[in-house]
Amino acid sequence: MNIEHFPSRLLENAVNEFAKLPGIGKKTALRLVLHLLKKDAEEVHRFGEAITQLRDEVKHCSHCHNISDHEVCNICSNPSRDHEVICVVENIRDVMSIENTQQYRGVYHVLGGIISPMDGIGPSDLEIDSLLERVATGQVREIIFALSTTMEGDSTNFYLFKKLKNSEVRITTLARGVSVGDELEFTDELTLGRSIVNRLLYEQSIS
Amino acid sequence: MNIEHFPSRLLENAVNEFAKLPGIGKKTALRLVLHLLKKDAEEVHRFGEAITQLRDEVKHCSHCHNISDHEVCNICSNPSRDHEVICVVENIRDVMSIENTQQYRGVYHVLGGIISPMDGIGPSDLEIDSLLERVATGQVREIIFALSTTMEGDSTNFYLFKKLKNSEVRITTLARGVSVGDELEFTDELTLGRSIVNRLLYEQSIS
Repeated sequence: MNIEHFPSRLLENAVNEFAKLPGIGKKTALRLVLHLLKKDAEEVHRFGEAITQLRDEVKHCSHCHNISDHEVCNICSNPSRDHEVICVVENIRDVMSIENTQQYRGVYHVLGGIISPMDGIGPSDLEIDSLLERVATGQVREIIFALSTTMEGDSTNFYLFKKLKNSEVRITTLARGVSVGDELEFTDELTLGRSIVNRLLYEQSIS
Repeated sequence: MNIEHFPSRLLENAVNEFAKLPGIGKKTALRLVLHLLKKDAEEVHRFGEAITQLRDEVKHCSHCHNISDHEVCNICSNPSRDHEVICVVENIRDVMSIENTQQYRGVYHVLGGIISPMDGIGPSDLEIDSLLERVATGQVREIIFALSTTMEGDSTNFYLFKKLKNSEVRITTLARGVSVGDELEFTDELTLGRSIVNRLLYEQSIS
């Protein structure tokens, strides 16, 4: 059914806004909106506010660029974490995936993407300089590459490796328990947990 | 991946709110929220406001109970529609489906559901009395039953038929072009358009 005859402009607006979300078509959007219409005003307000409030108030950690409620995120501000080990990930979903394994006690660095010429994403679009700065302080013992095992992930790893190999820091990467071609976030926690425990020297992984 | 380790309470709130929507799991919710986070604040505000505004300001037409921006909906207030013919539908999606066929010039009555003992929905939960009142004015020539051709739809038709059969009004139902067992809203516009043009007397449809 194409949805031309909206009985209400307000309804049309809400549906169009929902339909802008990835993977949500007009029809699904209408379903969701009509579902919300059945709820109490209070509940719907909570929904709307949760989103606007997030967008307005959420911060990015000044250390690792993870999403955070504070200037420095809970992980970076946690003294019981090993701040000399930095796990480099593509996005915050990957941080959450690794945290869920409860196998990692170091800190993170969120690149905000991976090098992908196809999508016009180059090194300058990512939080790479800030990573190099963190290493330059000399307080970093190890960098763990935990990017998706895709071509983009591998080339990003290699780009970072070239930038870092002259520093004192030990460069490791996830054990290839993560099956090649998989997105990190779709990897089950057991595999992911093992792969971060048995991480390899980056050189081994490419040899 | 189960999502326990949210880096931000604000993020967690937003994800939980999204995950309350039908057919949206935690993981999808996270995707949608992170998508919104990438948008300009203005765009996200428009999203949040479109929903809260809808919930706060939308009205239901005092005649047909369709969703409307005004006290009386565009269809009921349209003098070029035939107000003596009322098409009875389950919900506003069905109004939109029939409007899309551009085959119907009468008005509507939205029951707000169908009789479904399984879901504990009885006649008193639906806009049935208000329909009988509309008929009682004597200004209605025909009532078209356009409910889904499911068991619940049929029993609702039959309940309404018993209530109406002593009145002068002509009671018709959609031609069974709508394949039995289908939800009305999933019917293609052509079939739906034909079935409302070749509508039958309700007696014929049950004989």
